[in-house]
Amino acid sequence: MTVAEQQDAKKRRRAGGRAGHDARRGHSAIEQKPWVLPRNPDRPTEPLSAEGVARLHEAAMRILEEIGIEFLHPEAVDILRKAGCIVSGTNVRMGRDLVMAQVALAPRSFTMTPRNPDRTLLIGENVILFGNVSSPPNYWDLEIGRKVAGTREQCANLLRLTQYFDCIHFAGGYPVEPVDVHPSVRHLDVLFDKLTLTDKVVHAYSLGPERVEDVMEMVRIAGGLSHEEFDATPRMYTNINSTSPLKHDEPMLDGWMRHARRGQGCIVTPFTLAGAMAPVTMAGAVAQSLAEALAAVVLAQLVRPGAPCVIGTFTSNVDMKSGAPAFGTPEYMRATQMTGQMARFYGLPMRSSGVCAANVPDGQAIWETEHSLWAAMQSGTNMVYHAAGWLEGGLIASPEKFVMDCEILNQLIRYMEPAIWDTSDEALAVDTIAEVGPHGHFFGCQHTQDRYATAFYQPFLSDWKNYEAWEAAGAVWTAERAHVVYKRILAEFQPPPMDPAIRDELAAFVAKRKEEGGAPTDF
Amino acid sequence: MTVAEQQDAKKRRRAGGRAGHDARRGHSAIEQKPWVLPRNPDRPTEPLSAEGVARLHEAAMRILEEIGIEFLHPEAVDILRKAGCIVSGTNVRMGRDLVMAQVALAPRSFTMTPRNPDRTLLIGENVILFGNVSSPPNYWDLEIGRKVAGTREQCANLLRLTQYFDCIHFAGGYPVEPVDVHPSVRHLDVLFDKLTLTDKVVHAYSLGPERVEDVMEMVRIAGGLSHEEFDATPRMYTNINSTSPLKHDEPMLDGWMRHARRGQGCIVTPFTLAGAMAPVTMAGAVAQSLAEALAAVVLAQLVRPGAPCVIGTFTSNVDMKSGAPAFGTPEYMRATQMTGQMARFYGLPMRSSGVCAANVPDGQAIWETEHSLWAAMQSGTNMVYHAAGWLEGGLIASPEKFVMDCEILNQLIRYMEPAIWDTSDEALAVDTIAEVGPHGHFFGCQHTQDRYATAFYQPFLSDWKNYEAWEAAGAVWTAERAHVVYKRILAEFQPPPMDPAIRDELAAFVAKRKEEGGAPTDF
Repeated sequence: MTVAEQQDAKKRRRAGGRAGHDARRGHSAIEQKPWVLPRNPDRPTEPLSAEGVARLHEAAMRILEEIGIEFLHPEAVDILRKAGCIVSGTNVRMGRDLVMAQVALAPRSFTMTPRNPDRTLLIGENVILFGNVSSPPNYWDLEIGRKVAGTREQCANLLRLTQYFDCIHFAGGYPVEPVDVHPSVRHLDVLFDKLTLTDKVVHAYSLGPERVEDVMEMVRIAGGLSHEEFDATPRMYTNINSTSPLKHDEPMLDGWMRHARRGQGCIVTPFTLAGAMAPVTMAGAVAQSLAEALAAVVLAQLVRPGAPCVIGTFTSNVDMKSGAPAFGTPEYMRATQMTGQMARFYGLPMRSSGVCAANVPDGQAIWETEHSLWAAMQSGTNMVYHAAGWLEGGLIASPEKFVMDCEILNQLIRYMEPAIWDTSDEALAVDTIAEVGPHGHFFGCQHTQDRYATAFYQPFLSDWKNYEAWEAAGAVWTAERAHVVYKRILAEFQPPPMDPAIRDELAAFVAKRKEEGGAPTDF
Repeated sequence: MTVAEQQDAKKRRRAGGRAGHDARRGHSAIEQKPWVLPRNPDRPTEPLSAEGVARLHEAAMRILEEIGIEFLHPEAVDILRKAGCIVSGTNVRMGRDLVMAQVALAPRSFTMTPRNPDRTLLIGENVILFGNVSSPPNYWDLEIGRKVAGTREQCANLLRLTQYFDCIHFAGGYPVEPVDVHPSVRHLDVLFDKLTLTDKVVHAYSLGPERVEDVMEMVRIAGGLSHEEFDATPRMYTNINSTSPLKHDEPMLDGWMRHARRGQGCIVTPFTLAGAMAPVTMAGAVAQSLAEALAAVVLAQLVRPGAPCVIGTFTSNVDMKSGAPAFGTPEYMRATQMTGQMARFYGLPMRSSGVCAANVPDGQAIWETEHSLWAAMQSGTNMVYHAAGWLEGGLIASPEKFVMDCEILNQLIRYMEPAIWDTSDEALAVDTIAEVGPHGHFFGCQHTQDRYATAFYQPFLSDWKNYEAWEAAGAVWTAERAHVVYKRILAEFQPPPMDPAIRDELAAFVAKRKEEGGAPTDF
């Protein structure tokens, strides 16, 4: 691209951004809170004392120094050896001086800029952002009424929800795995859908170099960016999970280093289920999770000093009767809070999740999800994965659950608005209390008239009618109401604007890569 | 009673207490966490700055000094006049010096001792206690499938749940109004049921002197107490609601003063719906609520210095489209937290609630209830009313909701246990991490074997099976599972032991009072 072409592309993108905004305003299926990067004003909940933080740090350092982490990637091992780590085969032990020096290079906060710059995210500080459910292989909705393997159409519909809701800030992994698309080209089709149906920050799975490079290239094309522009600032991110205990595997490390090298977002989230892949005690599980995560952050900083990293937590417990993973438990909440304390200790942004073990969007699904979302709020989490649509421990994506979760997220966003606890004279309203007196009511007074339209959060899914009115309206339970909202959103959905030339370029890239066979698979 | 008889009674009561405990252990419908007075270890969430607290205090004082509160009870007005308040008809204005001096006389914490002293409650400090739903006129369960007027049988069944669940610490008002019992004798029948089906702290409605005196006498009889013993320490409590704005009515004040005079628990909870009975701004609604509550506390202290008082909050907002009350909203949460800050400022224990606007025990019911329960946790609340069984803004009691709420309460109680975030060497488990290494798992290791039975909270209602197993077991949603648990509990319920002589004395008192016509009514 010439400079003139780049400027043209930027103009088109900006126009698209504004048009997108107008299109959103035109939505009428529901009234929702506008797009904002919410700031969490509350002091985090901190179960650990200063001594507890020091002890957890000491345990993480001992794991890194004395036990070591397996890095199943020769280049990664090489980089770590050269930095002074003690290497034995794939086992890498790193001293705390190196660890702390490298971790200190990671920024405390950074931005990620998607194709619509109005959707730029700030990762860090007290900002808390929400993303859609990612990676369930299965789908469930009230119409089908049972668990089925995911399809591209279902995936696209969940992407439409991801775009539609202003409380969803980033498009995580595939909201459901489209099992009807061959794995060699799945990333091409889903990324095409994701980049055309949404204009929010997207993610690349670290599942082999071809996939990572394809996604980076598609994000670059969708943004109308030169390679230099793409590399200049984070545009997207990957999330890697360690293979707990104590192991980072080859494709994850490959994707991790590719993202670090090009300055894109690097999120590392050990999946440390206490009692299975980690000690049965929560402090032990968190210590192990920290060691695994910090080891990856050290590698990223060695690859590119200042690479934008996020420390994730997925520490929960299993059901010790069955071995099944549990989510949103009391132990999960405290582990998340402990990890939050440690993320602040290390000066890294943090990721946690909105999760549950329930199989359908019922009461249990909501109390487990509420507990995980409050753990995110209480821990100072910056990025909340899976914040909408997750069921069955992440094995099912559900549009009804997605819509219900977005109602909760809207409420949390409102909860963070300082206007609620304004104590100005106008808010304290002593004169109005005097004016109304002991025999009146406040419905009609000027103070109320001036404020009633915006004074309180208005839910789009909660039904506040009394029983009789609710019954007369069909006695519809929450999940069924969510299904109706889902269908209404689909019916009126309009994709965010995209320059036709960019869309063509994206389609051509997909076609070319499909012709080349996509990413290699064993089957 | 002679001294010997009193000692006999005490022995019997103690034996009953122990037997009750054994009987509880024999329960098998569910596994639940044992009775404990939970201590909330977390720092409260405090939206207000120090200046905000000062401004809210100033506003409450201005309401008391400049606007005044209506006291619709001549004796109360007389007491307040003699203490130096400025009286004009029923309007009473009180200076902040008087208010603060009287409020300072109220204890920061106190105990309440029911007929089973093992159930003694500590109200204050960082203890958080939960009570059953109180006062809905209607009942709903899955079997009936619609809203019906409450009956004595339904009320008794909800009292059985109140007794059965160890996470329910006190028996509040009637868990449903038994509309099939005439109001003149309703309190006699329900209190007989409550005192025989439960052994927990009970409540008296302040709805006329006869009812209050009858309940006090029945609590005294049930406890095997002399009048002196009853008066010596709090055994029960009342809760009064101001008639907002700015008014305390006659029967409430009568019951309030009777409780204060005999040193029983005095809880005052203004029902200040922002935009209806209070300003549309939350700070204004809280300021008015504080003024109404503090005015009642002043009266209680003038009646009996040191009377045990609790400041309650029921500040929420209305749906400004319909005027319907809303519960568990973002505004409700912040108002509760603000009230918590002010309760600590005044040195008074605090009451809030577990509430929702939903009509059935579905997703909305749980997110609204979760929000109100977390507001209780975050605000430093000591007594949580309506913590189990509440629907439709308090117009419906539901056993399924009761059981679901108790699952949540059990999780909150576990959440408060410091064992979760233990950072001892044994909990950090670095040696175990070394032992298991990168290729093993933690299921089998000794560290896990030694701890797995008690390491994690075990839910009694959550279903952690995977989808296929859940489907094979009938695909039962949470509310339906709760119904089954409810029926199992009823089937095996055994009332706590009571000395037959005491039971006879209670029955005789009820019979005598019924013969006398009970409490006067207009119909």
